[in-house]
Amino acid sequence: MPTDRIAIVGATGFTGSELVRLLHHHPTAEIALITSESRSGQRLADVHPFLDGVTDRVLGSLEDLSTADIDLAFLAVPHGVAMDVVKRLHETDLPIVDLSADYRLNDAASFEAWYGQEHRFPEAMKHAVYGLPELFRSDIPKRRLVANPGCYPTSILLALAPLVRAGAVNTTDLIADSKSGVTGAGAKSKPVNHFSTVHDDFAAYGLKTHRHTIEVQQHLGALTDAEVTVQFTPHLLPVDRGILSTIYARPLGEMNQTHLDDIFRTAYADEPFVRLRDRPPRIKDVRGTNLCDLHATWDERTGRILVLSAIDNLVKGAAGQAIQNMNLLLSHDEGLGLDLVPLRP
Amino acid sequence: MPTDRIAIVGATGFTGSELVRLLHHHPTAEIALITSESRSGQRLADVHPFLDGVTDRVLGSLEDLSTADIDLAFLAVPHGVAMDVVKRLHETDLPIVDLSADYRLNDAASFEAWYGQEHRFPEAMKHAVYGLPELFRSDIPKRRLVANPGCYPTSILLALAPLVRAGAVNTTDLIADSKSGVTGAGAKSKPVNHFSTVHDDFAAYGLKTHRHTIEVQQHLGALTDAEVTVQFTPHLLPVDRGILSTIYARPLGEMNQTHLDDIFRTAYADEPFVRLRDRPPRIKDVRGTNLCDLHATWDERTGRILVLSAIDNLVKGAAGQAIQNMNLLLSHDEGLGLDLVPLRP
Amino acid sequence: MPTDRIAIVGATGFTGSELVRLLHHHPTAEIALITSESRSGQRLADVHPFLDGVTDRVLGSLEDLSTADIDLAFLAVPHGVAMDVVKRLHETDLPIVDLSADYRLNDAASFEAWYGQEHRFPEAMKHAVYGLPELFRSDIPKRRLVANPGCYPTSILLALAPLVRAGAVNTTDLIADSKSGVTGAGAKSKPVNHFSTVHDDFAAYGLKTHRHTIEVQQHLGALTDAEVTVQFTPHLLPVDRGILSTIYARPLGEMNQTHLDDIFRTAYADEPFVRLRDRPPRIKDVRGTNLCDLHATWDERTGRILVLSAIDNLVKGAAGQAIQNMNLLLSHDEGLGLDLVPLRP
Amino acid sequence: MPTDRIAIVGATGFTGSELVRLLHHHPTAEIALITSESRSGQRLADVHPFLDGVTDRVLGSLEDLSTADIDLAFLAVPHGVAMDVVKRLHETDLPIVDLSADYRLNDAASFEAWYGQEHRFPEAMKHAVYGLPELFRSDIPKRRLVANPGCYPTSILLALAPLVRAGAVNTTDLIADSKSGVTGAGAKSKPVNHFSTVHDDFAAYGLKTHRHTIEVQQHLGALTDAEVTVQFTPHLLPVDRGILSTIYARPLGEMNQTHLDDIFRTAYADEPFVRLRDRPPRIKDVRGTNLCDLHATWDERTGRILVLSAIDNLVKGAAGQAIQNMNLLLSHDEGLGLDLVPLRP
Repeated sequence: MPTDRIAIVGATGFTGSELVRLLHHHPTAEIALITSESRSGQRLADVHPFLDGVTDRVLGSLEDLSTADIDLAFLAVPHGVAMDVVKRLHETDLPIVDLSADYRLNDAASFEAWYGQEHRFPEAMKHAVYGLPELFRSDIPKRRLVANPGCYPTSILLALAPLVRAGAVNTTDLIADSKSGVTGAGAKSKPVNHFSTVHDDFAAYGLKTHRHTIEVQQHLGALTDAEVTVQFTPHLLPVDRGILSTIYARPLGEMNQTHLDDIFRTAYADEPFVRLRDRPPRIKDVRGTNLCDLHATWDERTGRILVLSAIDNLVKGAAGQAIQNMNLLLSHDEGLGLDLVPLRP
Repeated sequence: MPTDRIAIVGATGFTGSELVRLLHHHPTAEIALITSESRSGQRLADVHPFLDGVTDRVLGSLEDLSTADIDLAFLAVPHGVAMDVVKRLHETDLPIVDLSADYRLNDAASFEAWYGQEHRFPEAMKHAVYGLPELFRSDIPKRRLVANPGCYPTSILLALAPLVRAGAVNTTDLIADSKSGVTGAGAKSKPVNHFSTVHDDFAAYGLKTHRHTIEVQQHLGALTDAEVTVQFTPHLLPVDRGILSTIYARPLGEMNQTHLDDIFRTAYADEPFVRLRDRPPRIKDVRGTNLCDLHATWDERTGRILVLSAIDNLVKGAAGQAIQNMNLLLSHDEGLGLDLVPLRP
Repeated sequence: MPTDRIAIVGATGFTGSELVRLLHHHPTAEIALITSESRSGQRLADVHPFLDGVTDRVLGSLEDLSTADIDLAFLAVPHGVAMDVVKRLHETDLPIVDLSADYRLNDAASFEAWYGQEHRFPEAMKHAVYGLPELFRSDIPKRRLVANPGCYPTSILLALAPLVRAGAVNTTDLIADSKSGVTGAGAKSKPVNHFSTVHDDFAAYGLKTHRHTIEVQQHLGALTDAEVTVQFTPHLLPVDRGILSTIYARPLGEMNQTHLDDIFRTAYADEPFVRLRDRPPRIKDVRGTNLCDLHATWDERTGRILVLSAIDNLVKGAAGQAIQNMNLLLSHDEGLGLDLVPLRP
Repeated sequence: MPTDRIAIVGATGFTGSELVRLLHHHPTAEIALITSESRSGQRLADVHPFLDGVTDRVLGSLEDLSTADIDLAFLAVPHGVAMDVVKRLHETDLPIVDLSADYRLNDAASFEAWYGQEHRFPEAMKHAVYGLPELFRSDIPKRRLVANPGCYPTSILLALAPLVRAGAVNTTDLIADSKSGVTGAGAKSKPVNHFSTVHDDFAAYGLKTHRHTIEVQQHLGALTDAEVTVQFTPHLLPVDRGILSTIYARPLGEMNQTHLDDIFRTAYADEPFVRLRDRPPRIKDVRGTNLCDLHATWDERTGRILVLSAIDNLVKGAAGQAIQNMNLLLSHDEGLGLDLVPLRP
């Protein structure tokens, strides 16, 4: 029986519609308000015709937030916009899960250096928690502002955290070679997501400078006293959904496969959304779900650890993890509404 | 609370795993047995690694059917195999939903003419009902053997039935130009489904002779006294799932858009799985769901009616419709477990 | 040895770069000027990085056309723009192959009715010839303005012309169900060509009203005294290149497969770019080439003729056919530079 | 005017048909014989229908090789088969370009260790040269057996050779994270290349043990006295053609972007098939061509060199490079017949 009245701020992007998809089956949450400043007054199903028959909701605007009786708000707006919404809502007690990048970093200086823009409401940073439950679960229920992790960082942090926390790898010799589906680049049409640009093609982008680099470094840094430097190379795959990260690390001490397996089993044996696989993970095996598939292997010949991780960037990398965080904030079972079966093929 | 003990005969194909995916969320059904003669004894998740963590079931064999306490069986085996299973189970009272083609046609002669093989158990044909609930709903609960419709026929029959039943079209001047995703061609590797054969390509196949032609003709024929002749041309799309049928018909009497809309609204206004759309349907808008999207338009200039229909061939065209039939056989609400949201993008 | 100095007006679209690709191997043509009003002064390879090393040309502007010593100009600009270029060049003797739609129709009234805009230079229509060499070859060398056919019309006209010219089909009962790759929708980013809109999806568009309908009707009309009405339904395929048209017709008199084969063999036995196939054609089998693959079959059961045609919309449907027309205008062998092998897979 | 009579041993795979495609435009080579033991006597265009009209050749068999008047043979048969053909032809003087792996490694022991099978004709290894012209050009004309490089090794060696030869990188700290199109896995249907396995999916395979690892190590080893250890991780992309390798290396001494650029410019400024790009290369930008696009960048922050390389695995990674080797063996200009323009989009 729905008892949690939820607002989604930002309806036109992929994360907005994915939240609607996932909340449709959530047993306690109901969407009480969904907003779009540009399309306010229109039916949600006119913006996303696949939702016809699923929902009759009409889009509201931010104005409606003050008067609606809301228990939690998701912010599904771009970075640089979310901070203004947080500022506006700051005086209320409304719990917020922000899917943008605005509160993911530790400090305004990092944000401004990597995002190249001013942070207009850094005051809320001290109230924010980085919402990667597998790593920071206990911190989440206490806060009012959850910064939902980036898609690439989710895939990389889940793969590296057990090793870093165990002190098992050299934290300045880490490489994440990541490949993402196109939905990570947003719903707005631009040359980079033109079908003919992406289809049958494959390339890296953002070499050396992608903003998710600092996000990974800071939150790995929370797990160790050592310095952390990550080489992060994103690539664009000709698929809609999915991130595969191929990660290379050097062990600090002795390593073997048994020890490696132990580290991951210890970290994740009881995690509902992490599957430890005995073969390289495939992005289609997690499609549509909140799962993260991990495979770690020790290469005796080269002296390297390889960790491969697969997630759906719109679910575990965005809307699914946001609902996981919502469940924690609302004191529900963390997996409520997230028992999803991959769509394969 | 699960109370219906379900068997799935045939686990290795696409319809078998899709039944598992969909039944996972069914509130009353539980998979009590799933069989594969070739892989009996193995874990289902070893055959379909994406199901790891979703199910722990070990594959059984047909032998186990006799001793298991089962309420209903799905047959997810190829045509020509299903008839032998039906024969074997005939003496029991077990309700069967057969996803193969073996009991879809009215008589053994038609089967043998179009499928080019002998029917080894035609006796069961008289007990069988064609399981397209939107057309033959009332007949289904009375029978013990439901022939689950073919994927193409589902997409074509739902589009044409309202017109044929209303006597509104010339039933010997019907064209269905259909386009299907690759999963319709099965999970077994063959040249026709090699990635490099399908990707970036598009072609028709089975011109004039595809077996679904007779299936469409016979079940349209049940709706009219007139003779029915259908031109059916299937094509293979470079996608996994989805069928779009573009259908051309000539009106018998006066026609206009209002009248056309009335015919479809009358037929489908209360159908939970049919969405009448005001624009051409898209296959991705129904992906993963039991929905059939329909759009009918009258072309004054040419004097033709166009009907376009979109389904997911593995759901409304196979496993989803099978569960719809199961619900009817077990006297549940027809939509139980089938309130699915399309996966888009 | 290059002796023909060629200008390409419009460099940024897909047809512009495809002309560059094809002319690279033309033995007598050299690109003397290529223009873009928006990117004039930039290197062509900066607009199309795949051409790096292939060409060093810098983009010029329309201004340069007057002073350059040019033997023929291709117009690779949108409809509505080409007419202004034609007007500007009208006083010169420069032969023009216009790849836009501006001079494809017989009269300004048709253009304005179907394109919804004024024709600003209809005077040139009387000098224009419809450049489909297989049908109107002898007319082309005499004219100064060749209207290069649309991609869909090329695929449909080549399939239907033999039947219409032979008086073998009812010309008011013609259906062309066509499926095109995305490049037909242009290089400019818009929601309709966003990767996530197109990938894994398939839908019809422009039902009843697509502008290519009138183009097909008018040029079929040139082959018969009978009235011509065509039902044309375009669909968008998740591929870059290729059009497959599935065409349905009713014979006027007696028909059989032998007769049908004769009609097509008579029409096309000596055509260098038409391949008569004994199986349904595939778009990847013509990719990158000026070929049109045709397959015609008589369905005794339904009394219909089916013709399937496959072309590469950017080659036979645009730039390749334009070069074929250039060869005719410049009195070269029609196939010069067009002996291309399909890129498969 | 064709003067070189060429045999292709093995017609049914992707490299066989790609050789046909490329040789079609070669000014001096003519295919005098093309063989298939399984389909001997059939038309080549029946095996590869896209070649209809391109070639009328009928497939011969190995028997025909002894009597035909041949100037050079390409072996386009699997590894383990090619060695038997080499053995058979050994007594003749026929120059051979072997596209299989049988003669790529330095010694039989390496072959047997990494390929897990006996080498039945190791005697020819001493006559073989590794046919990567950009690295070993001067050695090629002297030999009678050219081992055409593997697709992955081509992409990796061209990226790393300048750095290794210059002594600029630590040769035991090299990582090649490579992504390949499906054609690399062969034309034979198997689960791994089923459309529904590959489409919308992405995964690594052959972790730690892929056979191309030793090929890369041995031929990098020829450029340095230092020990070479390479971490090679291949992945399968949902595209037909193309390999992108993302390569990570540590400098041995001082490094900066200017120095890095110098190393690559020095190595490749005059190479006709290597393009040094100032942005990350894209596989579609080289599709259908013999080009290798390279981009090298120095990451001051992490102290790593990144080199990205893109090739078409069937051209520079197979048939195109084989023709480059043929040209060298026959004392032609190395680029004869290989002046190809990428097919984009």
